[in-house]
Amino acid sequence: MRVGIMTSGGDCPGLNAVIRGAVLNGIKSHDQEYLGFLDGWRGLLQGEFMNLERSMVRGISKQGGTILGTSRTHPFDHPEGGVDGVAAALDRHQLDGLVAIGGEGTLAGAKRLADAGLPIVGVPKTIDNDLGGTDYTFGFDTAVQTGTEAIDRLRTTGESHHRCMVAEVMGRHAGWIALHTGMAAGAHAVLIPEQKVTMAQIAEWVGDAEDRGRAPLVVVAEGFVPEDAEEVHTPLGLDRHGRKRLGGIGDRLAPLIEDMTGIETRCTTLGHIQRGGTPTAFDRVLATRMGMGAADMVADGDWGRMVALTGTDIHRVPLEAALESLKTVPQHRYDEAALLFG
Amino acid sequence: MRVGIMTSGGDCPGLNAVIRGAVLNGIKSHDQEYLGFLDGWRGLLQGEFMNLERSMVRGISKQGGTILGTSRTHPFDHPEGGVDGVAAALDRHQLDGLVAIGGEGTLAGAKRLADAGLPIVGVPKTIDNDLGGTDYTFGFDTAVQTGTEAIDRLRTTGESHHRCMVAEVMGRHAGWIALHTGMAAGAHAVLIPEQKVTMAQIAEWVGDAEDRGRAPLVVVAEGFVPEDAEEVHTPLGLDRHGRKRLGGIGDRLAPLIEDMTGIETRCTTLGHIQRGGTPTAFDRVLATRMGMGAADMVADGDWGRMVALTGTDIHRVPLEAALESLKTVPQHRYDEAALLFG
Amino acid sequence: MRVGIMTSGGDCPGLNAVIRGAVLNGIKSHDQEYLGFLDGWRGLLQGEFMNLERSMVRGISKQGGTILGTSRTHPFDHPEGGVDGVAAALDRHQLDGLVAIGGEGTLAGAKRLADAGLPIVGVPKTIDNDLGGTDYTFGFDTAVQTGTEAIDRLRTTGESHHRCMVAEVMGRHAGWIALHTGMAAGAHAVLIPEQKVTMAQIAEWVGDAEDRGRAPLVVVAEGFVPEDAEEVHTPLGLDRHGRKRLGGIGDRLAPLIEDMTGIETRCTTLGHIQRGGTPTAFDRVLATRMGMGAADMVADGDWGRMVALTGTDIHRVPLEAALESLKTVPQHRYDEAALLFG
Amino acid sequence: MRVGIMTSGGDCPGLNAVIRGAVLNGIKSHDQEYLGFLDGWRGLLQGEFMNLERSMVRGISKQGGTILGTSRTHPFDHPEGGVDGVAAALDRHQLDGLVAIGGEGTLAGAKRLADAGLPIVGVPKTIDNDLGGTDYTFGFDTAVQTGTEAIDRLRTTGESHHRCMVAEVMGRHAGWIALHTGMAAGAHAVLIPEQKVTMAQIAEWVGDAEDRGRAPLVVVAEGFVPEDAEEVHTPLGLDRHGRKRLGGIGDRLAPLIEDMTGIETRCTTLGHIQRGGTPTAFDRVLATRMGMGAADMVADGDWGRMVALTGTDIHRVPLEAALESLKTVPQHRYDEAALLFG
Repeated sequence: MRVGIMTSGGDCPGLNAVIRGAVLNGIKSHDQEYLGFLDGWRGLLQGEFMNLERSMVRGISKQGGTILGTSRTHPFDHPEGGVDGVAAALDRHQLDGLVAIGGEGTLAGAKRLADAGLPIVGVPKTIDNDLGGTDYTFGFDTAVQTGTEAIDRLRTTGESHHRCMVAEVMGRHAGWIALHTGMAAGAHAVLIPEQKVTMAQIAEWVGDAEDRGRAPLVVVAEGFVPEDAEEVHTPLGLDRHGRKRLGGIGDRLAPLIEDMTGIETRCTTLGHIQRGGTPTAFDRVLATRMGMGAADMVADGDWGRMVALTGTDIHRVPLEAALESLKTVPQHRYDEAALLFG
Repeated sequence: MRVGIMTSGGDCPGLNAVIRGAVLNGIKSHDQEYLGFLDGWRGLLQGEFMNLERSMVRGISKQGGTILGTSRTHPFDHPEGGVDGVAAALDRHQLDGLVAIGGEGTLAGAKRLADAGLPIVGVPKTIDNDLGGTDYTFGFDTAVQTGTEAIDRLRTTGESHHRCMVAEVMGRHAGWIALHTGMAAGAHAVLIPEQKVTMAQIAEWVGDAEDRGRAPLVVVAEGFVPEDAEEVHTPLGLDRHGRKRLGGIGDRLAPLIEDMTGIETRCTTLGHIQRGGTPTAFDRVLATRMGMGAADMVADGDWGRMVALTGTDIHRVPLEAALESLKTVPQHRYDEAALLFG
Repeated sequence: MRVGIMTSGGDCPGLNAVIRGAVLNGIKSHDQEYLGFLDGWRGLLQGEFMNLERSMVRGISKQGGTILGTSRTHPFDHPEGGVDGVAAALDRHQLDGLVAIGGEGTLAGAKRLADAGLPIVGVPKTIDNDLGGTDYTFGFDTAVQTGTEAIDRLRTTGESHHRCMVAEVMGRHAGWIALHTGMAAGAHAVLIPEQKVTMAQIAEWVGDAEDRGRAPLVVVAEGFVPEDAEEVHTPLGLDRHGRKRLGGIGDRLAPLIEDMTGIETRCTTLGHIQRGGTPTAFDRVLATRMGMGAADMVADGDWGRMVALTGTDIHRVPLEAALESLKTVPQHRYDEAALLFG
Repeated sequence: MRVGIMTSGGDCPGLNAVIRGAVLNGIKSHDQEYLGFLDGWRGLLQGEFMNLERSMVRGISKQGGTILGTSRTHPFDHPEGGVDGVAAALDRHQLDGLVAIGGEGTLAGAKRLADAGLPIVGVPKTIDNDLGGTDYTFGFDTAVQTGTEAIDRLRTTGESHHRCMVAEVMGRHAGWIALHTGMAAGAHAVLIPEQKVTMAQIAEWVGDAEDRGRAPLVVVAEGFVPEDAEEVHTPLGLDRHGRKRLGGIGDRLAPLIEDMTGIETRCTTLGHIQRGGTPTAFDRVLATRMGMGAADMVADGDWGRMVALTGTDIHRVPLEAALESLKTVPQHRYDEAALLFG
């Protein structure tokens, strides 16, 4: 049985553990043979791949990133893509199945292809933990751990200088990383896209913490927007390529907080360090198990579904489960965290 | 409302986060006032405590160990203990409730006391993750992460010297730490108390790994006993090569593996480094939420129960849930891991 | 003997180890008694301090920041400052000596005060390692280690996405952090204030690395200015408080590198995480020894001098040694590192 | 110019950085070509090697261990060894020079070979930092950092259980690792081979720490022997309390300390985790610079010498410098550390 595997979209700690888990389980349990396509769908459609013998996945589960490379190529936007294009690629490589490791876009593409009869299984990947159908996605725990360690460092500077520290973490549409990082780091305010909060409320939390002699810590997700404060929305200007020129929400909030509270405030944007590097043990185990589960799904010809975690069990759910809606932070989880603010 | 709180049994990363979570939520949501008893039941029965004002729990969730201290005192073995003794102590301190953070012994004691009508709630604590009723206990993730990082270091020595490395991790009665650490570290064999394995099988796994050019890695739980190999059970002394025979199972296995495979083998016993130090973000979040949940239970007078994690939710279960049977590694989880051995 | 001690200027990992070293050695070897002034010179001049009994410095050498707090107050700018003001403060607190832990400004102030006959000794502090008279200053090793770990994480993202990663590290006037972090992380280009480099040269290094199939890594010190590229100098706009609004050199270089090489380029500014948090063992040992040395200097009445590291020895040098010139990266050290670029 | 390179003796963090530094500098500055011999002298004498093209050393400076493997083979004990054997091997591989990375045995062998006219340069390697002629050897800083992090974890257990913790670190003949780890971790006693200390003195330090409410921490080098206490030397077996008596000095000291002080005492032997894994940034920089320096020595035909660190400079010293005497901890360094004991 010949199986293709690829990683698509933003990189995420644990991708290599998924690849290793699938390849080892495929070889040892199902006599499968793996082709690793390079840079996601692009490699599949353009025929770029590496043969994943067992020795190729040796010791990679502790490596961040993906040995296959990744890209944001979408199977339906690519000139040689679409159902026919992907079907042709699978034929060309005599593949009996394809393991697509990726986020919303990849899984949506995988669903359309599977619905059209192509032998595809999915592995959900998002560092933001905002895909439905699974309790957690791999990479999230590493992002939270890395962010928490970085913020532990920021705090000592805040305390020594009696400053308010703002830490911007990842999370465009969902605040899971901010919620867990903030709770782990003991933040006095956590700001996430799901929750509208006024600048006055933020200033109150910051002020209350300072009144108790603390150096206020604010953890903000990149996708947060305050309910008011027009100033926050004023564009900082795009560069000539239309790329956002610097200045995430954290950099914009810091001077506002300083103005409103009179407390010297500094922002650090953690950025890419949250999504790279050695995965935590939690993510290595989760990703390895998901990869092994994907190889089993292929062996069973259980197409159009993906692996998922429920409690401590790896099982299978329809791809729809990940797609029907973004998994955002529910109100009760934010309320729980908010009890510790201020 | 006056509430007592204490930590009992072996220390565990996350204990301070539980204390902080309970105290902050208790103060802010329920107008509770906390007395922290020193060294577990001993402090309660002998009247040694500290008043846990908010400032006392400041920034402690990132600290390992417990600010209250701990001991193995059992409430029914202590001269001033038993139902009457504990009831008297609760009266003496005018306590409306008690939060008992501990393992099997403490929760069993708490159940007997609650059954006798005393206002007690529990928080399950075991670094071994072997208590029922909850998906995970805090401290386990830290132990696995610390063990995995240590074994990542051992591997480079094994590979440079073409040695087999044996790493002994904690786990007297359940192999959860060994299972997760071994899977995360890419072990060629994981040996746990739940599974009888012959020395021949171990030697085969080690030999297979070496045949593929790997430096074999064996992760063994302290409670593992091989199915055969009387020699392993022989009293301490020198082995037949005059090498000193050490105490733990890992130290005993190493020379046997070396004899059977001809591969130079060394053991490292990780010991106490697995149970101390800064908790992972995962454990800080889990422990904080459990502490907050315990304060809510006290506010509700929901005695005789404990907080537990199911999936991503903190909820409440009867104390029996933790006690009816040891939560050991199920066969399918070991079989899953074993696919990666050799 | 009553001794004052204070920490001034930017915080730095190791400050608490200096305080602990001075207090413990002072108490045990010299029967000294320590007053810790709060927020640097401000606390001395305004009479805010804490008595540093032995218990106050318990276990603090592993804590980042400074338990005394810090500020940028300069002894000659403060209304109650100047030689007379400081002399009066020393009298008021009946101090026989003062240990001033700080950077260039503090040591220059300390020299003027010592020249005027006041009993002051110095401990050199700069995370940038740019003070003369000593091989290393504490905090530098921690900044390099933290930066290197962060960049190790960035690399996996660069490699998975075939991107050029730019990492901006600290170093306004000297490139030591960039030089060591870049060499430790295997950077393909290191850009420091001491060295004028053209955009064309930077693009060549980046292009060469990519030609060899690498994901180019550029480590740039915040104080670097390219020899050309006017665009880099165009102001990104100041906010209404005249604070630099976002956009360090790294954020400005990234789009230029992308334009010149056609390689997708992203910047991460490590910022404050480099100067906070638990010090490395190297810095704990160095800082502890410097603190102990300062207590000995006070006992000897060896005023107007500071502790310094030469090779592995802690000894004493005149304060001038730190002040005569900024310790920048010498040409031969940059040339050595540059052999590994591209 | 064809150059051989090899790593011999115990593995050490930084070996790969030395190899990378030598190969990159050799290729880029001196048009050298490198053959990497496997498992030290054995590979050279038996003709096992890999060609070290630039791509072979890509990204290895952050990897622990050695990509070349190592062994304890001595060039004068090996049947095909000796001056003639090594000379023949150099001829056979048409080598113009050899870089020998190793400890005392390897450098002594290198000296005899160089004295006999063979083109050999040395790179000093010992995790124990006990080679003369250089301020530090690479690997030492990593061992101290890893040991300090592990002991930071042990402390929380000691404090929670009011126990004395004994940590055994490496150091057969010299106590550098124990001295620096102990000072960094805030040990109440540091025991090293260079210093005879009585059990009574150890018990006094431990007791004093406990009297001040601390959980005593003892850091002992594996080579330490108490001045008295015959019992420590008694063969393995059970102590008088029937507790199993383990192998290392730490395991033997713990019950003695407990007997003499009445304080519950536990030992953890850090073992191999100190010598493996990712090197610290300090060691990566030091090892890279030493490797680069070795390539320069080969280019200059500067045989019979080795690279060394003095202050912040890499320079060259005769091999004798490393061999004339073991670099042990001088009395003043122990006295300095001892001021913090108890």
